[in-house]
Amino acid sequence: MREVSRTQVDARWSRPERVVLAVSVDKGGKADIIALGWKMKTSGVPPMVAISVGKTRYSHKLISEGKEFILAVPGEDMWEEVLYCGTHSGREVDKFKQTGLTPLPAKFVRPPLIKECIVNLECKVTGELDTGDHTVFAGEILNYWGSEDQRRILLSIGRESGYEFLGGGKGYRFGAIKR
Amino acid sequence: MREVSRTQVDARWSRPERVVLAVSVDKGGKADIIALGWKMKTSGVPPMVAISVGKTRYSHKLISEGKEFILAVPGEDMWEEVLYCGTHSGREVDKFKQTGLTPLPAKFVRPPLIKECIVNLECKVTGELDTGDHTVFAGEILNYWGSEDQRRILLSIGRESGYEFLGGGKGYRFGAIKR
Repeated sequence: MREVSRTQVDARWSRPERVVLAVSVDKGGKADIIALGWKMKTSGVPPMVAISVGKTRYSHKLISEGKEFILAVPGEDMWEEVLYCGTHSGREVDKFKQTGLTPLPAKFVRPPLIKECIVNLECKVTGELDTGDHTVFAGEILNYWGSEDQRRILLSIGRESGYEFLGGGKGYRFGAIKR
Repeated sequence: MREVSRTQVDARWSRPERVVLAVSVDKGGKADIIALGWKMKTSGVPPMVAISVGKTRYSHKLISEGKEFILAVPGEDMWEEVLYCGTHSGREVDKFKQTGLTPLPAKFVRPPLIKECIVNLECKVTGELDTGDHTVFAGEILNYWGSEDQRRILLSIGRESGYEFLGGGKGYRFGAIKR
């Protein structure tokens, strides 16, 4: 055990990271999608999740103002859409239009579900915490949606072996657990 | 995409979950260790992590009072120690003594590092957020420690195939990515 650099440490403990999408809407109802690796569950009763969103991101503004988001879990077939959502800004593009993903009405919140995802969670923001260059948004899960297929979830991976490599670009690599 | 139960959804998106240990100390300096799956990075500049700790847990009291913790990353050889820490209370047992894990002095915080872990992060609590039955503690990382071996990190897994199963008990299963 010795003092090491941040880069060395990050490479040792940061993967695999399950990737999710968060959907939010502006005041006019237009939706944006952000790709996130930094998320966790944070309560059993009531069920809650927390997501960490960069302060400069357009979705940060939408979630701060709208206090609602959908947490959507992409499948192994969706790495290109995830990469697109993670490397473009909703200030400039319509991500549903550009990716071809399909919005579906949610039951309790304004942001839409993503039809192509494995899981969609309807979340209402109950609290926010300022953390450096990100904000933690805690969301109570109001409703659960799931697909009936058997696709694997998408993982952000590094250069380690052991995964099925699916694709990547712009510094990101995506994979899945080998069956 | 249809409405489904929470249990069905959890089984689809909650694994693999990297397991970590958090070390905190009471006012007399006696250390406790908790096992956590709910954690995430939450800032790049400054580097920060967030952990979600159950309100009834003894470590919740210690971190609330002491405002410091070590985030330690166990290796694939440590599932029994992790299971012990996750299923016993520091109110009743000395987890370093019972597991045989070795405390080492940290540089900037009072809680000790765990010598046997792959990574140790020294964290100072900068904020807290009430989230249902857990509290989110955000911690700025003040210092990084790493081991020089090539052990894999420990994962909490379900019943899916694809992992190397390492062991488990009391409803928990631990594994690692197959090499």
